[in-house]
Formats: sequence, C-alpha cells, structure tokens
Amino acid sequence: MKLEQAIKSIGQLNQEAMDDARRRLDSIAKPLNSLGKLEKLIIKAAGIYGTHQVAFDKKCVVVMCGDNGVVDEGVAQVSREVTAIVAENMTRGMATVSIMAEKQKADVFVVDIGVAQNLEAEGIISRKIRYGTDNMAKGPAMSREEAVKAIETGIEIVFDLKAEGYQLIATGEMGIGNTTTSSAMTAVLMNKDAEKVTGRGAGLSSEGLKNKIRIIEKAIALNKPDPNDPIDVLSKVGGLDIAGLAGVFLGGAAARVPVLIDGFISSVAALTALKICPKVHDFMFASHISHEPAASMVLECIDLPHLLDCGMCLGEGTGAVAAFPLFDLAAEVYSRMSSFEDINIKPYKPLD
Amino acid sequence: MKLEQAIKSIGQLNQEAMDDARRRLDSIAKPLNSLGKLEKLIIKAAGIYGTHQVAFDKKCVVVMCGDNGVVDEGVAQVSREVTAIVAENMTRGMATVSIMAEKQKADVFVVDIGVAQNLEAEGIISRKIRYGTDNMAKGPAMSREEAVKAIETGIEIVFDLKAEGYQLIATGEMGIGNTTTSSAMTAVLMNKDAEKVTGRGAGLSSEGLKNKIRIIEKAIALNKPDPNDPIDVLSKVGGLDIAGLAGVFLGGAAARVPVLIDGFISSVAALTALKICPKVHDFMFASHISHEPAASMVLECIDLPHLLDCGMCLGEGTGAVAAFPLFDLAAEVYSRMSSFEDINIKPYKPLD
Repeated sequence: MKLEQAIKSIGQLNQEAMDDARRRLDSIAKPLNSLGKLEKLIIKAAGIYGTHQVAFDKKCVVVMCGDNGVVDEGVAQVSREVTAIVAENMTRGMATVSIMAEKQKADVFVVDIGVAQNLEAEGIISRKIRYGTDNMAKGPAMSREEAVKAIETGIEIVFDLKAEGYQLIATGEMGIGNTTTSSAMTAVLMNKDAEKVTGRGAGLSSEGLKNKIRIIEKAIALNKPDPNDPIDVLSKVGGLDIAGLAGVFLGGAAARVPVLIDGFISSVAALTALKICPKVHDFMFASHISHEPAASMVLECIDLPHLLDCGMCLGEGTGAVAAFPLFDLAAEVYSRMSSFEDINIKPYKPLD
Repeated sequence: MKLEQAIKSIGQLNQEAMDDARRRLDSIAKPLNSLGKLEKLIIKAAGIYGTHQVAFDKKCVVVMCGDNGVVDEGVAQVSREVTAIVAENMTRGMATVSIMAEKQKADVFVVDIGVAQNLEAEGIISRKIRYGTDNMAKGPAMSREEAVKAIETGIEIVFDLKAEGYQLIATGEMGIGNTTTSSAMTAVLMNKDAEKVTGRGAGLSSEGLKNKIRIIEKAIALNKPDPNDPIDVLSKVGGLDIAGLAGVFLGGAAARVPVLIDGFISSVAALTALKICPKVHDFMFASHISHEPAASMVLECIDLPHLLDCGMCLGEGTGAVAAFPLFDLAAEVYSRMSSFEDINIKPYKPLD
C-alpha cells in the first residue's frame, strides 16, 4: 500500500462504540474509574475496533531488524553481526522477546528490513530494502525513496496481520547502532541538543558516549535534515528499522489495529509516524517507560500514558510484550465481570 | 504462631543465592541490567528462597475481609453490607480480583477476619476475630489483643500456604471504610496531617471527603495512638483487614515467601509490618502505584520500587495480581534464556 493512500484511509475513533464501552465499564460492580488506565485502554480499543466488544486474544510483536552504517564510527559496544545473530535467534524462540511472547501465546514476526547480511533462519520475513544503511556521519543513511519503501513495508505487514485476525500488535526492533539513530532523530524532531537525548545504549563507556554524541552532532550538521519533514529526518539520520516501525504505526491506524509502543527506538518511530500523520495518535498505546534517558522525553512528547515502569531497556519489543497481560486482564474484567444489578448492589455515584 | 516467635524467626536474604542469580542474569544474552527491576526481583526472590532456582508457578492472593465501625460516621459511599456481598462474590469467581486471578491460574483465598455478619459462601476461610470493629470516632477500633490475634492469623495463613507450595502471595482486602482507617494510620505512623493523606476512596463527594477528614482527626485526638507503637495505632485507628495483612507480610518474612503489596490499604499494612519488624522489607515487593493520593506517599516511605503505573484504585488485591505476569515473564527469561556462550556472542562489558 502506498503511504499517501494509507494516510488518506486513517479515520477517527468510533464514538458510539466508545460510549457503549464506557457505559459497560460504569455498570460493572466496582468503584467508578477504579481500573484507571485499564478502563481507558478498553474504551480506546472499542473506538479503534468500532464495537464495544473488545478482546485481545490474538496478539503479536513485529520486530523490524536492520543494520546501521554509523556503527563504523564505534558508537556501539558490540559489532554489527549481532543484529543478524539475534534476529535469527528470535525466530528460533531463543531471544528474550521470543521467550516472553511464547509464555503468553503471542506470535513473533521477525522482519529483515535491512540487515547487512543474508539471513538463513526459517521464519524470517524477508523484506530487505537494502543491506544496512550508509554511515550517516559521512552522508545520508539512505535515500528518501528507500525510507518511504520501508514505511510502506511496515504498513503492508500490518494489513497482512489484520487479515490474519491479529487484534493487538507490539512493536520491536533489533539493529546494532539504533539508539544512535534514534537519538539523532530525537534531537532533530524535538529540537534538542544531542547530548540531552543520547544515552549509553546497550552499555557504552563514558568515552564511548562522548564519541556517540559527537558523531550524532556531526551527522546532523552534515546532512541538515529538515525538522518539519519527518521523512527527510528518517532518511538522513534514521534507520530502516525505525522507518519500518513508523510504517507499523501508520498501518495500525489505517487498518484499525491497536499498536503498542515499546521503548526508546519504537517511541521515535511512533513520533515519526505522528509527525507524518497526527491522527495516528488515536490508534497507538504506550507500554512502558524505558531506562534509556530520552525515552521518557519522547513519550511525553507523544503524550500517551505508560502502564509499566520496570526500568527495562532491552529492546526487541520486550517492554511492549510485557504489557500484553494488562490488556488481557482489562479485557477479561470488562467482558466477564458482573454488573451492579447482577449482584444486587446499588451503583457508586460519580464524583462531584 | 505467636507474633514474637514469628519475628524471631525472620532471617536474612541468602547472599550466595543472590550472587548466583546475579551471575546467571549477567551471563544470558542481553545487555547488562537491561531487564531493570525484573532482574532485581529475581535476585531478591533468590535471596528469599535461598536458591538461585526461582519460579513463581504457584501463586495466590490472600484477601482479608473485615468491617469497620467508623462506617457509622458516613465515611463511605456504600453501606457496610457491601463487604459481605463482595467477599462472597470473590469466592464465586465474580469479583474483579477473582477474574484477574483466574485468568492467570492463581488462587484466591478469601479470609473473613472480621466481617460484621456471618458469611454463607463456601470457600470463605473463616477466621473471624470479631463482628467488625468498633467506631474509632467513639473509642478504640479494637483491643490490643484482638489486633495481635488478627496479625497472628495472617502469619498462620502464610505458613499454611507455604506448606501447600505457594511461591508468591499477593495481598488484597475488602472492607467498606478501610481507606478511612488506612488514612488514619498513615497520618499517625508518618506524622502527617489527616487532610494530606485522605482521599475520596471509592467515590466520596467533596462534602463527604471533608467529613472523612474530620472523623479521622477526631479519632486520632480521642484515642491518642502512640506513633512509636504500631500495634497501638493498629488497634486504636486501624482495622482487622489491615492487621491481618500486616500478619501476611510478617508471615511471608518468617516463612520465606515473597509477598506483594497491593494499593493504599495493603501499603499501610506493609508499613505497619515494617514498623513491627524492619527486616520484613527484604521479603516484600511493591506492585503498583495506586491512584489513591496517599498511596505513593506510603510506598515511598516503604522504599520499594513499583512495577505498574496504571492508575488503579480498586482494591481487592487487583493491582498486585496484575503484577503477577511480570514475575512470570522475569522468571521465564531467567530460567530459559540462552547464555552468550550458547549463541556465540561476546558478552557486553559492564559500565565504567
């Protein structure tokens, strides 16, 4: 699906379904609003689905995997090959996100959107745009056309998943160097100094952190991404994983499937999607506050409430997948709980 | 078990088991500490169990149910009978906590520690100390002996559950009027003005809130609980549910079973247990930040990190039960995840 077409097809939340869900929540035998954010997520999901019947039985995580040329500048502690190794392990149920998803009977879709080598593992969804990006410290990471193609890949994947009946999609990523691209995009999109939005990623030394900040500053100065053109930012200092995930958020909005933001990198993809089309906000959910310093800044800018505060910063979609059970529990109470009438208690009155 | 005996038997965390767990966590193929609080909870659980083999397969929630005489003063929006109705519904799988627990195959133990009427439902654990407390606005809620007996009941229940193989216990409560007793205890134990630690509970009007604060101030002025004697505070301005839960925390420490704090009322019980024996801290976990205003204040005083931030304030143990999946996911990754060696990647280096 073309990007413009997807954007055009993004509608609004269904108010009638949301009103129905609110009424149902207020009729069940518990103090009003006492399930807090869990009630809000049910109502929003009703608005997305267009019906008060809300269930999250079929869930998955889409993990966009891609390499980043900027790794040549020594911004990551481990080498590029780890992207491919972990991506393949994910399909074999051996990565953290696979173990967390399996425990919950959720599926893991591992997408090669731009890993720098050929992946052998069965189960990899091969949608490679190119073999890794170029080094953004020496020029744009990719062309605008490649960025758009990566976004459209994300959109298409969501439509496929919707057709297969998935009701909730978590976003994940794997790409050595992608906290560097995420920090660069954050600096540009939120107009912040690089040092304010750059962290140690998966464990850089203090010297390494200084270098990472310097490289981000250099890449921004060299490529001059236009802060008002999110696709320009994405192509010049972003990555294929971020582009693919931005597409997943846009696709979720177009296909009306709720999409969960994971941590820092996924948040940057969500912010990118919002800059492309603000209506996407109605179709995405935050999951957790990552330990990566800029993550809460980006999430605040996105303005969605988080559910988990576990200090996680593993990536792969683990934070979003860890929030799945809250969606399940909310839906379970919503659909199974007795009403005040059923159990013969007078309802609580609303607050004055 | 006598309270003194339980206190005497509380030991320390097993450092060797914790070191083993830390080593195992650092060897698995993920960036160091990237699971944040989930890693810390595994290590603490190893220290409690005395072995690096950590699993939370058998879980339950203990719901202490009791009535509060202070309800006569109009501090709650619904009438006292609701305590009994909801307690009975819990045993029938119809309350919110039952639905959340059932979804996770966790068990619900509903304890009548002081409901004001006889409970008919099968499955109620009948440990009634008395038929509700007295009205603390007119005198002490209960005698010191009754408070101690309620604590000892909680301790005994945990030893029974330990014998049945439970590995993780959540705390819950049901008792109309128990945010009033909890606020009164918080005011005394933390030396705060009543109005700073009193909220609308399950939906009081502004006028009702003013009355609730006035009643708490009156009860404290009349009974003069000694802030340095937690059992004095408990018996004069507390409740049987809070006393029973304080016993569950003490029992968890004595029997070496991790116990999860739920929301405001449960936090006050945890604080009471800590004031009785500070070593209990090593055996308890926070779960969520409740929407009830004083809840975060009490949790901060207890000084344990929360996992969920869902704006819940339903009680019954729902916040603690909603955190169960995080324990499961942490244990699953901990026990199943490959090591760096297994998958042929060089480990991450520690931060400088």
